[in-house]
Amino acid sequence: MTARDKLPIMQIRIATRADVPAVLSLLADDHISRDRGFGVVPESVDAAVWAAFEAIDADDRNELIVAVDGDEVIGTCQLTFIPGLSRNGAERMLIEAVRIDVGRRGQGLGGELIRWTIERARERGCAIVQLTTDKRRTDAHRFYTALGFEASHEGMKLLLRDTNR
Amino acid sequence: MTARDKLPIMQIRIATRADVPAVLSLLADDHISRDRGFGVVPESVDAAVWAAFEAIDADDRNELIVAVDGDEVIGTCQLTFIPGLSRNGAERMLIEAVRIDVGRRGQGLGGELIRWTIERARERGCAIVQLTTDKRRTDAHRFYTALGFEASHEGMKLLLRDTNR
Repeated sequence: MTARDKLPIMQIRIATRADVPAVLSLLADDHISRDRGFGVVPESVDAAVWAAFEAIDADDRNELIVAVDGDEVIGTCQLTFIPGLSRNGAERMLIEAVRIDVGRRGQGLGGELIRWTIERARERGCAIVQLTTDKRRTDAHRFYTALGFEASHEGMKLLLRDTNR
Repeated sequence: MTARDKLPIMQIRIATRADVPAVLSLLADDHISRDRGFGVVPESVDAAVWAAFEAIDADDRNELIVAVDGDEVIGTCQLTFIPGLSRNGAERMLIEAVRIDVGRRGQGLGGELIRWTIERARERGCAIVQLTTDKRRTDAHRFYTALGFEASHEGMKLLLRDTNR
């Protein structure tokens, strides 16, 4: 067996309803998310979460993405394509909720996932790709900078209400 | 005439097609935007910009907002409501392209505009409001912090192509 054989064969695609529980597990399995109260993976998916999935699934400007190795969901992110008057009417792509399975990190899968999303933005004609990353995630800053992103902006957040997860 | 009489009577509403040229002027009239090549206000609005306006206008999850004093557009911003699986399926509201007319700044109109958008997010049930602001806009950071925002995140941007404005 060569080193190459050990690389997971990752496929990246739009999530289906069957992927939702695995995506929720990835969103919960993260120490900063746990600080926000995302720690408990629910045994059943709440109606509000199903409704959110249906809203994303039906919207041409939102895409829930999964990276899979066989049957296993090992990464996820959400893309939102935002029309605007700036930049001569070009869309911008926002990336949210990026997660790679804790057991699969350090293998370049995150870079592969983000490069795939950037290619998707190019195909769609977006002028800019943007995301925010918690200032405590210093590894993530290096990761995105290596992919060509510039930390040119402050990411400001205002919580309107606490949620259980 | 009292000081109170001098206050502009600002109304905040969703933009119509007739507001688009004024919104473009506000987007262009900004030194950081000029650095990005937004400096020339176009005599006519390009088809791509009209298409972007039509896309926003037709989309329940995007709203182009204007603040007006009589017939004059004195402020603008764009709101995007993003469904997601996190935070128990609650939407987040993204604010982009915030501008107040240079001649009207320092009168509290920006705060009035942003508080109006936050109220809109609450009415819709959003769990979080977010925006990014250029690190060079130090006044803006103080402005948003005073409104309750926390600069908890790095705002990362990747330009895919230059645009003329």
